[in-house]
Parts: sequence; C-alpha cells; structure tokens
Amino acid sequence: MKRVAAALAALAALSAQAQSAPFAIAVHGGAGNFTRADLPTETERQRLAVLAESLEAGRRVLAAGGTSLDAVVAAVRILEDSPHFNAGKGSVFTSAGTNEMDASIMEGRERRAGAVAGVTTVRNPITAARAVMEKSRHVMLAGRGADEFAKEQGLEIVAPSYFRTQERWDQLQRAKERAGTPLDHDAPKGGAAKKTTTLAADEKYGTVGAVALDKAGNLAAATSTGGITNKRHGRVGDSPIIGAGTWAENESVAISMTGTGETILRSAAAHDVAALVKYKGYTPQKAADEALARVKALDGRGGAIVMDRTGEVAFSFNTTAMYRGLAKGSAPAEIHIYR
Amino acid sequence: MKRVAAALAALAALSAQAQSAPFAIAVHGGAGNFTRADLPTETERQRLAVLAESLEAGRRVLAAGGTSLDAVVAAVRILEDSPHFNAGKGSVFTSAGTNEMDASIMEGRERRAGAVAGVTTVRNPITAARAVMEKSRHVMLAGRGADEFAKEQGLEIVAPSYFRTQERWDQLQRAKERAGTPLDHDAPKGGAAKKTTTLAADEKYGTVGAVALDKAGNLAAATSTGGITNKRHGRVGDSPIIGAGTWAENESVAISMTGTGETILRSAAAHDVAALVKYKGYTPQKAADEALARVKALDGRGGAIVMDRTGEVAFSFNTTAMYRGLAKGSAPAEIHIYR
Repeated sequence: MKRVAAALAALAALSAQAQSAPFAIAVHGGAGNFTRADLPTETERQRLAVLAESLEAGRRVLAAGGTSLDAVVAAVRILEDSPHFNAGKGSVFTSAGTNEMDASIMEGRERRAGAVAGVTTVRNPITAARAVMEKSRHVMLAGRGADEFAKEQGLEIVAPSYFRTQERWDQLQRAKERAGTPLDHDAPKGGAAKKTTTLAADEKYGTVGAVALDKAGNLAAATSTGGITNKRHGRVGDSPIIGAGTWAENESVAISMTGTGETILRSAAAHDVAALVKYKGYTPQKAADEALARVKALDGRGGAIVMDRTGEVAFSFNTTAMYRGLAKGSAPAEIHIYR
Repeated sequence: MKRVAAALAALAALSAQAQSAPFAIAVHGGAGNFTRADLPTETERQRLAVLAESLEAGRRVLAAGGTSLDAVVAAVRILEDSPHFNAGKGSVFTSAGTNEMDASIMEGRERRAGAVAGVTTVRNPITAARAVMEKSRHVMLAGRGADEFAKEQGLEIVAPSYFRTQERWDQLQRAKERAGTPLDHDAPKGGAAKKTTTLAADEKYGTVGAVALDKAGNLAAATSTGGITNKRHGRVGDSPIIGAGTWAENESVAISMTGTGETILRSAAAHDVAALVKYKGYTPQKAADEALARVKALDGRGGAIVMDRTGEVAFSFNTTAMYRGLAKGSAPAEIHIYR
C-alpha cells in the first residue's frame, strides 16, 4: 500500500510538472523587402488569419501534451494549405512552369531529421519529410524518388495542378520578362554574391516554417517552400537542407530560416545559429542576428525563428518585413509582419 | 627608371613570396571497417597508386600557382575516373540497379559553393558541382535538372552504363540478400540510430574528397560519391550537402567528410568542424575528432580531412581504416590506409 501511495504521489507530481512545463510554438511565413503600402489590407488580414490558425493548431497539440514534432507539422500544414504562402498550394513556379517543393524537419532529442527536395505531387511536403525521417533509412530524398516514397507511405497525393495559383503564375511571367534572356546565362562569371540580388527581388513572401518546444522539453523545427520564382528545374535551396534551412537539437536551439536560399546554404545558417549558442554561449537572439549578418555579407536577405529549451524565442530578419507569430503557453498569440 | 626598378623589385619580392608560400593538398578515398587481411595485396597496391596520382595532380596545379579550386577538382577527377573508389566510375548501385551520384565543392574566399545530387550521366560529377557554382544562380541542382545543366555546360556526358562495375553490382546483390525484404520496410519505427548500422556494413570503401590550400592563401574542398549500396532512388547523402559533407572558408578550415551519410547530415559535421575552429579556437585535429564523436554518438562511422590556412592538416576517422594522403609543398607524398 505504501508503494502504491508513493507511486501515485510521484505520478501526481509528474502530472503537475507537465501541467506547468513551458511550451511554445513560433511560425514564419517568409521574409521580404516590402512595406504596408505594398500589401492590400484585405490580403494582410487574410495572411494574419492564416498565421493565427497555424499557431493555434500547433498550440493545441502542445497544450494537450503532444510532441513538438506533431506541433510543427500541424502548424506548417496549415501554411502549406493556404495559397497565401510560398509552400504547398501557392508555391512559386520554376522556369519550366512547374511547382517543385522542398521541405525538412528535425527533432532535438536524437537529432533525427528528414527532408524532401523537388516533390511535385505530395499535398503536404512537410509530411513527406517527416515520413523520410520516420519510415526510411535515409534523411533526404529528392525528385521522383521522393514522390514515389510519399505515395508508398500513403500520404495524400494530388495532381501537380493542385499547387497552381494565378498570382504565382503571373509572378513567373514578370520574372521572365525582367530576366529577358534565360537567367542562367547572364550570371556574372564567378560573381556569386551579385547573383543573389536578382533572386531576392522576386521573393516578396516566401517559405514557411515553425519551431516548437513541448512539455517534455523537446525541441523541433520544420521548414517548407516552393523555392524561388523562375528557378531551374532541379534547383534545391536551403529549406530542405539540414543545417542550412532547418536545425534542432535539445542542447542548443531549434531554427527555421527563410530568405535567399543560396546565401543561407553558403552560410550553413541554421547550424551556425546553433553553434553560436553552443560554442560561444550566445543568446538565441544574438546568435540569430550574427548568423544573418554572415548571410548578409554574401548579399543575402532573410530571417530566422529560433527557440531554446526554456521557450525563449528570437525573431531576426534583415528585410523590412517577416510574417511571424508566437504562441507561448496559454498567453495570447503575438503576430507581426513589419518591424 | 626609378619607378620601374621599384616595380621590378616589388614583383621579385612577390614572386619570391609566392615561391615560398605554403601550399598543400590532402585527399581521401573513403573510410571503413576493414583490415589489411580484407584487402588483396594487388588491390591495395592499385589503390595506393591512384591516391598518389590524385595527390600529384593536385600538387602540380598548386606548385604552378594554380588555385585550390583547380587543385581539388584535378585530384577528385582522378579518383572519380578510377573504378577503385565509390565515385564516378565504380559508384555503388541503388536498389533499382542504377548509379546516382552526388558531389559538392566550396571555396574559402567568398564561400562560393556548388553541388549536384542524383546525377546519372556526367562523367565527372565534381565538374558539374563546380559548374553549378560558377555558371548558375544556384548552389545545388538535383536529378534530371542537374544532368541537363551539365550537358548545357558542355561537360562530358556518358551513358549510365559507363559507371557500372561488376564488383559493385555483386555488392548490390549481396546487400539485397542480406536485407531479404525491401530495406525501407524493416527499419525500426523511429529508430534512426539503429538504421545506420546496416548501412555502414556495406561501406567498405567509399566517397572521395580533397581539401587544398593554394599559394594565394585560399582554401577549397570537394567531395564526390556514388552514395550507399542499395540506397533508394532519390536518396541524397551528406556528400552534396554544403555544411555536412563539404565546407570551406578561409577564416577557419576546408573539410571533406566520408562515412554513413545520414549521421553526418544529422550532425552538420563539416560545418561543425569549422564552427569548433572558429568559435572555440580548436585545432583542426581536435575539431575533427570532436565533430566525429558527435557523428559516432548517432551510431555513425566515418572520417574527415581538414586543412587550415597555414597548411596544417588533420585526418580523423572512427573506423579501422581510411584511404588518405597528403602532399605538402615539395615534400614526398604521404599515403596511408590503416591507422
């Protein structure tokens, strides 16, 4: 009887701890150089509503004691399903007029990770990334192999036309007009820093992502994108790259990045944030700011959301705006677009 | 006249400096758990000869005042052309019986980078990675888009059958027999750490890579691979991932990794080495050892070659053997397989 009572007391204490354990989720919907004047009021209202819905979906999972992995997937799925963001439905077009999507996910306890690049038929690329992590021996699958795997796993498959929106199609036409000639031929020889400027100009709003901390103290991060307008068939950006667009480890932080993918890749930016926290003892904010300064030094633009195991959150961006939000415990969600 | 004399003197000084400036190249041909008894003497002799040829090709470039980029490409091409290593000709087979190759390259001055994943027709995947870096707006191309780009760039295109060797084909059959059922279905649920053990067993020798320092003081790194035997169509390992398999920046080090790609990816291992050098002031050796310890903590095996701007070199591996070599200035090349 004594042992049963002790066990019950321990259980009650654990439950109380779980009740009071901090949990939080932060999301982003891309960063870009635009101002309030560029965005119609109604569009702004709709996007804020989708960000709120995404945050609440993640928060519900966490409040119920679910994992940070489940939370970031729930949050990102909503952003993918909305035509307002450049991921899933509403993804930008390649120069070939197709939608090729990238996504990745990572969890902080065992550093498990999964990623897909160039998928064209999975309704929610983030669920494909998660399936690669949990159901395959691999971390990353690209192209048709990734689509085939998603189908085998019973994920929802859609016709490529599902992802098409008129707005993104028009954006591609404008990008092609601006480019004049095929874009890959006017790149200055060896001038990698220069190239990215033209890419950035197209990215008014972009990639989506989420980072979360669950009651068990585990971090997770997820990122999903349609990439960059007028990209070449087969182009892989930073979003599906573990260490560039996405990183999570309990000993430091969870990160999701957005911005000019090429410069983020060349900076291993997500892992750089984690390394600055681990190896230099920086706060998440200071680490994110410094990692983005290194991206900016390559003429890159973008933003990061970062979370540590105490639920401390950093938003950092070197653009004029980043769609972003935070839901911490039961506190009201905070959602912002501009500085 | 005075000015001409001064200019000539300056030129002579510069030339003398260039003559005496340190330069070095290191290469690897993969790490694995095997001993001298596992390797026929004649095969060992042939592999040592290819490593020597690769080193000398890189050294010739550097001695003549060429760039570290040119040197690592020259060295890696020779390893790709040899059927003795798992890159280019002699690449391992996917479960579908095809050869899908990955490669990446990075230079340390501006952190420019290029990568290809899943190419099937480019004779030297490392040249395709370099073309992506220098001739496209992107850092990474995957699948058919990467092959198409390589062809557009005038790189040497071969029939997929060029890469086939009987030895690798037999290796695939053995891997399939061992696996019994399709490999992706017997992965333990969520057991990412466990999964890699079966992958490692196949990797007797693998991926190739090079790091170099040129007389101008610039670092570069390159990595090329056929991946892992019996991999799924579309699988991307660490080798084409900037920050995982390859990294170079003049402010820290150049790195090329080899081993169980999934665990190297989940460790952002190449960037981790650089971060430990930059942020903790570690020597290249200590940084490589610690980064590999983090890979090993995920049940991963492999090795790294690391070089800094003084030409200091570190070889680190947690397997019994790693094909490796070093040519520093005009000193005799050092080539080793075992500890």
